[in-house]
Amino acid sequence: MFEAAEIDHKVSKEKFKEAEMELHHRVLTLQQRLRQSPKSLIIIVSGVEGAGKGEVLDRLNRWFDTRDVETHAFFDETDEEIQRPRYWRFWRCLPARGKVGIMFGSWYTKPIVDLALKRSDLADMDQELNRINTLEQMLSNDGTIILKFWFHLSKEEQKRRLESEAEIKKLKKSPLLKDFSKSYDAFLTVSERAIRVTDTGHAPWHIIGAIDMKYRDLAMGSILVNTLEDALEDSEESAKNTTSTTEESDDDIVASILNGEASHATVLDTVDLSQQLDDKEFDEQLQALQERLHGLAWDMFKLRRNMVMVFEGWDGAGKGSAIRRVTAAIDARLYRVIPIAAPTDEELAHHYLWRFWRQIPRGGHITIYDRSWYGRVLVERVEGFASKQQWLRSYKEINDFEEHLTNHGTVVCKFWVHIDQEEQLRRFKARETDPRKQHKITDEDWRNREKWHKYELAVNDMVTHTSTANTPWTLVAGNDKKFARVQILETICERLQAVVDAGKDREPSKSD
Amino acid sequence: MFEAAEIDHKVSKEKFKEAEMELHHRVLTLQQRLRQSPKSLIIIVSGVEGAGKGEVLDRLNRWFDTRDVETHAFFDETDEEIQRPRYWRFWRCLPARGKVGIMFGSWYTKPIVDLALKRSDLADMDQELNRINTLEQMLSNDGTIILKFWFHLSKEEQKRRLESEAEIKKLKKSPLLKDFSKSYDAFLTVSERAIRVTDTGHAPWHIIGAIDMKYRDLAMGSILVNTLEDALEDSEESAKNTTSTTEESDDDIVASILNGEASHATVLDTVDLSQQLDDKEFDEQLQALQERLHGLAWDMFKLRRNMVMVFEGWDGAGKGSAIRRVTAAIDARLYRVIPIAAPTDEELAHHYLWRFWRQIPRGGHITIYDRSWYGRVLVERVEGFASKQQWLRSYKEINDFEEHLTNHGTVVCKFWVHIDQEEQLRRFKARETDPRKQHKITDEDWRNREKWHKYELAVNDMVTHTSTANTPWTLVAGNDKKFARVQILETICERLQAVVDAGKDREPSKSD
Repeated sequence: MFEAAEIDHKVSKEKFKEAEMELHHRVLTLQQRLRQSPKSLIIIVSGVEGAGKGEVLDRLNRWFDTRDVETHAFFDETDEEIQRPRYWRFWRCLPARGKVGIMFGSWYTKPIVDLALKRSDLADMDQELNRINTLEQMLSNDGTIILKFWFHLSKEEQKRRLESEAEIKKLKKSPLLKDFSKSYDAFLTVSERAIRVTDTGHAPWHIIGAIDMKYRDLAMGSILVNTLEDALEDSEESAKNTTSTTEESDDDIVASILNGEASHATVLDTVDLSQQLDDKEFDEQLQALQERLHGLAWDMFKLRRNMVMVFEGWDGAGKGSAIRRVTAAIDARLYRVIPIAAPTDEELAHHYLWRFWRQIPRGGHITIYDRSWYGRVLVERVEGFASKQQWLRSYKEINDFEEHLTNHGTVVCKFWVHIDQEEQLRRFKARETDPRKQHKITDEDWRNREKWHKYELAVNDMVTHTSTANTPWTLVAGNDKKFARVQILETICERLQAVVDAGKDREPSKSD
Repeated sequence: MFEAAEIDHKVSKEKFKEAEMELHHRVLTLQQRLRQSPKSLIIIVSGVEGAGKGEVLDRLNRWFDTRDVETHAFFDETDEEIQRPRYWRFWRCLPARGKVGIMFGSWYTKPIVDLALKRSDLADMDQELNRINTLEQMLSNDGTIILKFWFHLSKEEQKRRLESEAEIKKLKKSPLLKDFSKSYDAFLTVSERAIRVTDTGHAPWHIIGAIDMKYRDLAMGSILVNTLEDALEDSEESAKNTTSTTEESDDDIVASILNGEASHATVLDTVDLSQQLDDKEFDEQLQALQERLHGLAWDMFKLRRNMVMVFEGWDGAGKGSAIRRVTAAIDARLYRVIPIAAPTDEELAHHYLWRFWRQIPRGGHITIYDRSWYGRVLVERVEGFASKQQWLRSYKEINDFEEHLTNHGTVVCKFWVHIDQEEQLRRFKARETDPRKQHKITDEDWRNREKWHKYELAVNDMVTHTSTANTPWTLVAGNDKKFARVQILETICERLQAVVDAGKDREPSKSD
């Protein structure tokens, strides 16, 4: 979930200045439109300690005309507040139509802090998160635009920062700081869950890396501008009774000003594509891993535990051949491969998750999806087959779906097989000249290539929204096919080994 | 919640036949439109044992062209189903676009049965209900129309029925029956919660009294027809890109065929308006109750428990004077009366619940709302100030709001002061001739009188959707003002006495 936010984006001073001025101007214009609309805006500023939330507040207060902006910090509870139902303090701070409320800390603070410091349990938090979802849904129905920012730092970066002279001076007065930074891991685990459960279509989370202050503020600003633009357009159009025809643009102004300088970097850029294996290493490792997997699959069968594998990746990345190396290791009675092509009539007539639900394996069995439900947030998003509202909503739908699986005890392995553009080009050309492979390359493959960057952004968002502790994404270094196959087999074996070692025959319990 | 469903509606054979034919015809026509739409229909048939759910299924199967209808019973789980995540069995049964799925038992069955038979706890059920809300929201977003019926019988009626010869013959084979009927109360309590938490705008519950078989089927049929008509109209209009201008009608065809014969009866008809007190009784009781309330209010103050009272009722029912009898008993430092008139500019600029949240009392204090958030489902519904979608949604919003209050330990008392039309007329006329009261009567009062039956239906629905174990509605017999005042004071004293007796100083806990 936080993978993409740990990339160190660098922005030059000049570019920053230019982009910042442009954002400032746009925010003011949009605020003027907000004033005349029946909508209100809530901005929730949250994240790890040391990420500069205070600086973000300053920036926001510089951009907005502050006459219609109120900033609320939810720190300690007043006497007045303690004596009333807990949400009273939030209700009294909700912005009126046309206005902006910036929340430093929010309804998220207490459930996260309480669980991380073990003052409550998971069931308490889940109940609280459901209340939050209900509240946000209700406000959103009423015309409130809800922007939720999570500013992230890696553990090392946080440590470095909190120990720097300047920071110590600034922060040493905060009474909670010691607790927070000591239990970074606990906080992050709890926050991940809180974000996942409340990452809804009407109030999605935006996770922003805070290593570089300039990048952080520009990323925040461009999300602010894009969200406001979409929301106000919808509202102005519905006032005019016309149907929306505008295509929501993924291109943001900051990206165009930076001209790809910093903002182009995605999680995919963190994959080291130079990794490779020679033939001998490959043969040895492949054989060992396949034997191991063969045994593990039978162990899983005995435990009645089932497994789901998802393969996504670029055209030509070698998903098919990687899957064959996996299936070659497993007894044919134990697995099925489901290639996901265009949906059938029957599938089209149902919810998009229906075709995947129907293929869920029985206990002890394995289903391998060659492309999957992630098509919703990849091809359907990029090609515009799903509206922005639909694909934004589907992150939570997918996370809920996968939670049904993992609650039942299903092991979920998700692979994105990554290659770079040059490697793809090489493979496409090879396919065209190889008569045995010509059927594998179509005009569409070439067309998709032109949308490379849009797909990169979609993959980046997909990993951010759906890579969780129980269902992590594995980004596979696919330029060398041999390396990729071994990486995939290793990952699968490790996940299964952990289950088999835990050894408990987890019967589907009542609550799954 | 089940108050309205315990009214014994009688329908004559002739009227039934006429209405049944009409419904059959309408259902077929609507099914034809459904086939050509991108929507699907799920009908959930649930309720207490003995309510004739099997007969309802037969009826539905007679009305629909069964080629596009599938009926699913979720009784025991198959081997195939046990080995997969629990929802797999539901996903495989979801109807395709254009089709109808009737569910006899559903995703509601297991959570309700498990908790009622103490196989799970409340937290388990709540988690499951949240999953259900997520599922229904997702299906509804995808174009599925979800109709949820709960067929109700009172405990006595159920007992009578299950012991009748004919029924014993029919039912004796059901292995679960004994469990169910023995624990009627447990089932009802659990079901009430399940219904309340999942009574959403996109998938509202319909609670139908099943004493009279003919009334039961007609009520079900008319809800089916109305819901389908609204949903298909929306979908056809959005296909044509026009804005909906149709006013959803509350009048149903069955009511018009029955011509008020049976369907007019609402919960208000269960109030015995002939009850009265003579002056002596009144004076004695009033004094005793007021003294008692005075003490109880101070006891509550010592316990730091707060209280909210809601007064709704017909124009001229005597809310104001009843409130004065209450406040006269309480120390002025402990209460506030909030008269709810037209919202202020500031209030209009917020969510409709905001103006009520802001008046929530501190610990130990009392807020009395003279009219309340229920305006949303009363005047705003009847006058069309809120769209059907909005007021349907608000039942859950209101229940959630009141749960925030009760979770905090707030006592919530809700009164509908009832009078009949003749009594209102008498009082209006008296007001017109009494110079001291002329200011109390306006043209609007006369206009509202014409909508009497619409208000009756709105009150009936309000009580059905929002009268719960912790926040029950009290229907006050208001034709005799003296009786009404005593009834109100008695109710308040009893509620407070229970809290004071429980005596525990319930400090606002972390989870409130």
